[in-house]
Amino acid sequence: MRAEILSVGTELLLGQIVDTNAAFLSRDLASRGIDVLHRTTVGDNEARLLEELNRALHRADLVVTIGGLGPTSDDITKEVCSRASGIPLEPDPQIEEKLRAFFASRGVPFSQTNLKQALIPTRGAALANANGTAPGCVFDLRDRAIICLPGPPNELCPMWLDQAIPWLKQRGLAPREVLRSRMLRFVGIGESLLEPRVHDLMSSSNPTLAPYAKLGEVHLRISAKASSEAEAEAMIAQMESEVRRRAGQWLYGVDDETLETVVVREAVSAGLKIATAESCTGGLIASRITDVPGSSETFLEGLVCYANEAKMDLLGVPAEVIEQHGAVSEQVAIAMAEGALRRSGADIAVSDTGIAGPTGATETKPVGTVWVGIADRHGAHATKNLYSGDRSTVKWRASQTALALILDAIAEASEP
Amino acid sequence: MRAEILSVGTELLLGQIVDTNAAFLSRDLASRGIDVLHRTTVGDNEARLLEELNRALHRADLVVTIGGLGPTSDDITKEVCSRASGIPLEPDPQIEEKLRAFFASRGVPFSQTNLKQALIPTRGAALANANGTAPGCVFDLRDRAIICLPGPPNELCPMWLDQAIPWLKQRGLAPREVLRSRMLRFVGIGESLLEPRVHDLMSSSNPTLAPYAKLGEVHLRISAKASSEAEAEAMIAQMESEVRRRAGQWLYGVDDETLETVVVREAVSAGLKIATAESCTGGLIASRITDVPGSSETFLEGLVCYANEAKMDLLGVPAEVIEQHGAVSEQVAIAMAEGALRRSGADIAVSDTGIAGPTGATETKPVGTVWVGIADRHGAHATKNLYSGDRSTVKWRASQTALALILDAIAEASEP
Repeated sequence: MRAEILSVGTELLLGQIVDTNAAFLSRDLASRGIDVLHRTTVGDNEARLLEELNRALHRADLVVTIGGLGPTSDDITKEVCSRASGIPLEPDPQIEEKLRAFFASRGVPFSQTNLKQALIPTRGAALANANGTAPGCVFDLRDRAIICLPGPPNELCPMWLDQAIPWLKQRGLAPREVLRSRMLRFVGIGESLLEPRVHDLMSSSNPTLAPYAKLGEVHLRISAKASSEAEAEAMIAQMESEVRRRAGQWLYGVDDETLETVVVREAVSAGLKIATAESCTGGLIASRITDVPGSSETFLEGLVCYANEAKMDLLGVPAEVIEQHGAVSEQVAIAMAEGALRRSGADIAVSDTGIAGPTGATETKPVGTVWVGIADRHGAHATKNLYSGDRSTVKWRASQTALALILDAIAEASEP
Repeated sequence: MRAEILSVGTELLLGQIVDTNAAFLSRDLASRGIDVLHRTTVGDNEARLLEELNRALHRADLVVTIGGLGPTSDDITKEVCSRASGIPLEPDPQIEEKLRAFFASRGVPFSQTNLKQALIPTRGAALANANGTAPGCVFDLRDRAIICLPGPPNELCPMWLDQAIPWLKQRGLAPREVLRSRMLRFVGIGESLLEPRVHDLMSSSNPTLAPYAKLGEVHLRISAKASSEAEAEAMIAQMESEVRRRAGQWLYGVDDETLETVVVREAVSAGLKIATAESCTGGLIASRITDVPGSSETFLEGLVCYANEAKMDLLGVPAEVIEQHGAVSEQVAIAMAEGALRRSGADIAVSDTGIAGPTGATETKPVGTVWVGIADRHGAHATKNLYSGDRSTVKWRASQTALALILDAIAEASEP
């Protein structure tokens, strides 16, 4: 079964709003094993909407329109769907009564244009709106259907899940096949090095394996189609185990788990306390850790030492180490991590010192040069990194490295 | 002039990501007076991409594609644009050299698939990527053009503004009527209080004035259409001066100026040093300040004191103050700010202590309760706030209040 999504609204084409509805419907349709091959956006224009509707009906079994159901003259979706499908509209007395009662209860005069909202296809169904006045509707073309949904997300989502999906199931238009997917998240390895390790798996057609490069990490998505949820999950599990065998050492989490979520979870579960001593990331590492609910159980304190004086005062970095090696050096990164460990009494302390840019580069230390240090009861060490990108990108990438190092240190500390 | 936007990527059709790029480009094109009548999304599928490209080229003067420029076999956008336009691709030796140097500098082997990224249309141009390895490009069809941009927003946005727009201007493809706009940014006043002050101005049709509610701040956009840049700027200046007359006291910046940018600029210009002592914002204030290039001239140090011990040790908050008033209190916020001022030798220190949620609320202190403190040579005080939203929203709103307080303190310190 194939579906298309047709978003209607000049405000979308002007970029005044981001189309989160289309992403929601895409995700939901995919999870039901319904393929979406095209998504189109047009303005509140009758000719263009009609043309796109005709094309969509030609290609797909199900067309879902978003928006244009309101009372104003701009709202033309139902009228154009009626033309495209050849199914007339007629007023639904029950809906009209409800609308009149709604306006009366608010003391707002009921205008003739509001009657538009009571028009429903003669072959199809009305879809009740739990959070607004504009009902949705279905045009039932026997072998195909058009479903019209309102634009506000808080109206669209419940109408889709509670009204449209049951209608599709009852009409036998929802597919039996299920699609399940799982995202594997990697850090410390780039896409160009990860892909060759799983390249042969990427030609599999079911389950599929697809890479996504993110800022400072790489994701691999496994998707499986099957006749039951259990079967799809089993196919995913098998692919996942093969991927883990080949690249498991860089895998840090699955699905919606972020690096900071995993760090906090693992640290809390291991009973370990964390401290941070940041220079070039300027508080980003601490802020990411404290974004996680419950982080107060593991995060003791964070020091942002931009000035050399702060590095000396707060972290006890010896002045001669800064003088001899420079503030951006392995020795300073190590001394910062050791100082934070000592000061805070934490089990693991992470540090960084680098050049986030755009200024501050030297001949031997280009923008993006960042030393990330880590200290725990076994000792301390630091890694040198060269990150590309602008200032906030460098900060982000450095925070990724730091969080990955904390995760390694937690794993080591938990070993027997 | 008409443009179309063609987003390419199966992850979009699966709803795994929301297409914010399309909204960004729509907005930018609209602001230049370029009409966008269609926006289409297809997956990484050659036949469907080719079909949509051909349609778009038939209807529009400019087609902008998003995504599919990476090194993997899924990335087919340039190849399909070459077929649709009849303009062949050839390797660009300079780009190849840069790519090889980039990989070498990171000690990463250069694979054959990476060479794909060096392919550029023989008629058109390459567009440099400031934040990634995949360059964009232009296919120059004389009377029309295709511009190919990468998918990651931090690569797409600067490439569009700094590379693609200058190319369009130079080729005479950008329109003659100029549309200019200016964003006025307000903090410390909500939309529902700001709007009545300028309500009558919002019915003006040229220039227009439109409000945008953002997280922790409100923006007013003035837009003017005119036959020359100077004329449009003059119309904007007149409207701006009227808005400033009515609500200037809450206006902190214009256009892309963020609150942290203005804080750093004003502090540096006044020769004042800043320190932070954060509890519930967890490093976010420091991270925002240090996002600004040149912040090292004013930012001395930041302390993230999550644990009560850290508040006492690092900031000298007396144990009995915490015991008597609780960690989330006016007294602790003031003691934290005073402690940071004393410790760091800064001119201005800001602090916060609150309940970011989802847990930690008490009967008298619901989630979102945050005390924000500020100290300078005149003394110290704190304000109580109750923010709505989830954990990171509360953190963000608190950081807005803190930065606004710093700005007030800078203004006061600069008064004669």
